[in-house]
Amino acid sequence: IRKVEHIVREEMNKTGALEVLLPAIHPSELWIESGRWESAGPELLRIKDRHDRSYCFGPTHEEVITDLVRREIRSYRDLPRTFYQIQTKFRDEVRPRFGLLRGREFIMKDAYSFDVSDEQADTSYQAMYNAYFNIFKRCGLKFRVVDADTGNIGGKTSQEFMVLAKSGEDKLIVCSECHYAANIEKAYARIQGDSAKVSSVEEMFEVHTPGVESIDEVSKFLKKVPEHLLKVLFYECDDKYICAVVLTGDREVNEVKLKRHLQVNDLKLASHEDLEKISGSFRGYCGPFGLVLGKDRLQKIVVDIRVQEGQVYVSGANKKDFHMDNVVPGRDFEIVDHVDIHDVRAGDLCRQCGKTLVEERGIEVGHIFKLGTKYSESMGAFYTDVNGKQYPVVMGCYGIGITRVAAAAIEQNHDDSGIVFPPPLAPFDVSLILVDLKNSDLKGKADEIYAMLLSNGIDVLYDDREVSPGGKFKDSDLLGIPLRVTVGKKSMLEGKVEVKVRSNKGSTLVDPSALLKWVNDNLTLKP
Amino acid sequence: IRKVEHIVREEMNKTGALEVLLPAIHPSELWIESGRWESAGPELLRIKDRHDRSYCFGPTHEEVITDLVRREIRSYRDLPRTFYQIQTKFRDEVRPRFGLLRGREFIMKDAYSFDVSDEQADTSYQAMYNAYFNIFKRCGLKFRVVDADTGNIGGKTSQEFMVLAKSGEDKLIVCSECHYAANIEKAYARIQGDSAKVSSVEEMFEVHTPGVESIDEVSKFLKKVPEHLLKVLFYECDDKYICAVVLTGDREVNEVKLKRHLQVNDLKLASHEDLEKISGSFRGYCGPFGLVLGKDRLQKIVVDIRVQEGQVYVSGANKKDFHMDNVVPGRDFEIVDHVDIHDVRAGDLCRQCGKTLVEERGIEVGHIFKLGTKYSESMGAFYTDVNGKQYPVVMGCYGIGITRVAAAAIEQNHDDSGIVFPPPLAPFDVSLILVDLKNSDLKGKADEIYAMLLSNGIDVLYDDREVSPGGKFKDSDLLGIPLRVTVGKKSMLEGKVEVKVRSNKGSTLVDPSALLKWVNDNLTLKP
Repeated sequence: IRKVEHIVREEMNKTGALEVLLPAIHPSELWIESGRWESAGPELLRIKDRHDRSYCFGPTHEEVITDLVRREIRSYRDLPRTFYQIQTKFRDEVRPRFGLLRGREFIMKDAYSFDVSDEQADTSYQAMYNAYFNIFKRCGLKFRVVDADTGNIGGKTSQEFMVLAKSGEDKLIVCSECHYAANIEKAYARIQGDSAKVSSVEEMFEVHTPGVESIDEVSKFLKKVPEHLLKVLFYECDDKYICAVVLTGDREVNEVKLKRHLQVNDLKLASHEDLEKISGSFRGYCGPFGLVLGKDRLQKIVVDIRVQEGQVYVSGANKKDFHMDNVVPGRDFEIVDHVDIHDVRAGDLCRQCGKTLVEERGIEVGHIFKLGTKYSESMGAFYTDVNGKQYPVVMGCYGIGITRVAAAAIEQNHDDSGIVFPPPLAPFDVSLILVDLKNSDLKGKADEIYAMLLSNGIDVLYDDREVSPGGKFKDSDLLGIPLRVTVGKKSMLEGKVEVKVRSNKGSTLVDPSALLKWVNDNLTLKP
Repeated sequence: IRKVEHIVREEMNKTGALEVLLPAIHPSELWIESGRWESAGPELLRIKDRHDRSYCFGPTHEEVITDLVRREIRSYRDLPRTFYQIQTKFRDEVRPRFGLLRGREFIMKDAYSFDVSDEQADTSYQAMYNAYFNIFKRCGLKFRVVDADTGNIGGKTSQEFMVLAKSGEDKLIVCSECHYAANIEKAYARIQGDSAKVSSVEEMFEVHTPGVESIDEVSKFLKKVPEHLLKVLFYECDDKYICAVVLTGDREVNEVKLKRHLQVNDLKLASHEDLEKISGSFRGYCGPFGLVLGKDRLQKIVVDIRVQEGQVYVSGANKKDFHMDNVVPGRDFEIVDHVDIHDVRAGDLCRQCGKTLVEERGIEVGHIFKLGTKYSESMGAFYTDVNGKQYPVVMGCYGIGITRVAAAAIEQNHDDSGIVFPPPLAPFDVSLILVDLKNSDLKGKADEIYAMLLSNGIDVLYDDREVSPGGKFKDSDLLGIPLRVTVGKKSMLEGKVEVKVRSNKGSTLVDPSALLKWVNDNLTLKP
């Protein structure tokens, strides 16, 4: 944790950001001003002090920093400015889980930028992007930066830094070739239209498909690939109206994309009754033609971008036990809302370079965000420009989960014997193992090596416990210390020490005079 | 704050203490086990989470660390062990006050030692004592270690590290010559008996002293120095009984000493009615003779050690408007409980070396404490000895207020222009001031110096704001940066830069090639 902190602090200072220390306990007044005292929900840990005044344990510090800035910053001359802190935060998660990840209490580096304009704010954002990139690189972690959904906060830019790990909670879509990467919730692929439109097609005709309902069944029964089938889903939107979604049989609806397109907060599948009233049919046999906006509660029809105008599909016939062949979008049903709402998956092509996309799993360790003027307007953080006019300060916020980085490093780097820390994050660089405590020659040599390595700035864990050599090796592996130096009788007979890299299998012998070079080489050569 | 943290961490690691990070939010169960959930009072900030479970924001971590130790430590082989952490704590003080000091939220380094015996615990305690001594020395602070009262926790040893400062909350008694120092609550001085006892004295006789009540008035009226007068005070003890205290007229009762002697929690002066019933006299005219244990609520008579047997005093005559001369303790009233309960003051003599004691004021920044087995017994932290028998672990606890050290450094070191940081704690070593931003020669030179100092590990605050030179000098002084380097036109004509030490008055000129040496000399030469 302290090694992560150190790297983060150095990179933050390089950007010119100023370190501050804000209170962990916030007065409720500030959260009432921003409106979040109401909207925050039970994850906000609320507290009353001995005088019965209300506080919360800060889960994030927009309110507190905005309060500081509105008191201290007056003029465009005071801007731009970025502040950061490293501090314990608390989020009262319903069910804390996931091993080392997602404890309710955690250490976070949070930063906040203040600018006079969107353009200046973009520069501050980019500086943080670069710093974050350097931080995770220096940590020795495999990571990707992904476009992220901004959630309820709104339409501004947001990117997440994801440490790649099989156990990751987030699904990512990543280009095998270029830098494109996105959270699956916000992933887009290149749409491959069939080269030419089918010019003339016979009219739709019914096919008898008794008991054949699912895409799989229809595909087998009619010998059509799923991407040439159309399916129709009905969604209840914010409990207000119903939206029909038409997409090809091989894909699922990405509900986050659909929510964003419809600008609704809540989506769920409509009831069977609503479905039957609107389509006049049964589940499994709905088709896209014959849907009438305004009929019953149907208010929107959205057609996924993969459904191509002028091509030939099979869909339900709006009639039990029948499907319809030769359905041509644009001819047999109108396309008004033609948007990208399908799930992207491995094998799709990169929107940017056309190469294959792959799926990865990731752990979110950083999140950068253009906030705009949400907090500065609600809390009155204004600056005066060169003409004496007042404007709200343009903000950005940026977070790194310090304890999360340490946990993610372990999730990404381990084997059956334990942790395999990336050297920059290892609590110790070298594990020095003295095999036989009672042999004073060996002990003398080990003491000497310990002192030599320490004086050269190497962090050494000297294992001189009364434990068997096997036990010491096991513990060293378990702790994930990158390098192991063993002082034992056999190798010392040759005047050497045994050295081993945690992530490699075999060990070798090194002359004590060459040990420091071996250590430095193996610490810095790491990815 | 970060510089203090760094020094503290280094010195802790040197002792072999292991850094841990314990939770800030504690489950109430642990505090219920130790009994402190009840006894802690309103300073303990209690919290309920979304599941309505009880927690507190940790003001100290004995419970949490003892819980860890009882799970992990089984055998005498695992001991001794000392753990420490650096973390935000919270104490819900009634009235937070004192400028930078005594905020409710603060950062503390707390350490806990675990040993098999009192002797081993003494060694661990001494190691912490030495580390604390080194820490405050390295911080560049003037400080004293004082014997401290252990409060309600009980009779074990406790010492406080006090940063000397006029604004300090604590009064200290310090030897002008040797290392003796104590919180006034626990200060003892050498008692100087008159060389020879007065051999034969006439009997007591009454003196008419109409309206002469206070020590001052009696002293003047009878022309006797106050140390030859005796006064009697009556204390209500835990609302259970009354104790009479006899002491010389020149001193006050040190109630902390008296409480400790009587082993009571609460002391207050008895009511006039009780006083009159017990002494048969009026306030201002009570004498030590004629007091009868068991009369009314009088259960104890304590005579201060400065009251000498066989000497001659004047006291009240137990009769309005009369005093008694020729009162001889031991002859005219019995001395049973002869103890040290007076206040020690400047001018008294050191108990250890006999030299003069002086008074200082201090800010408590560290406290070390022998806990014994209070927590290990109540919470069941036992180890197994070599014979397989179980014993409670012997504990010690040790705290340094990290944020408090930073605040105390400022309280101790400032002048009318602002802070005068001791160099080891200054946020920056050097303030580099560029006088004229538009002069590219000057700017080039300043940039060069900035890069040179940074690359030599010097922390530099480069003031290249568009602000007048005077404003820059003022801010540099205000911030307390130890060294100032000014790049201006006039000195650069001679090829030099102007340098100044914050704590000195004048500035001098230095050749840029000699600047690094000047900086290093002036940073390390500091006390």
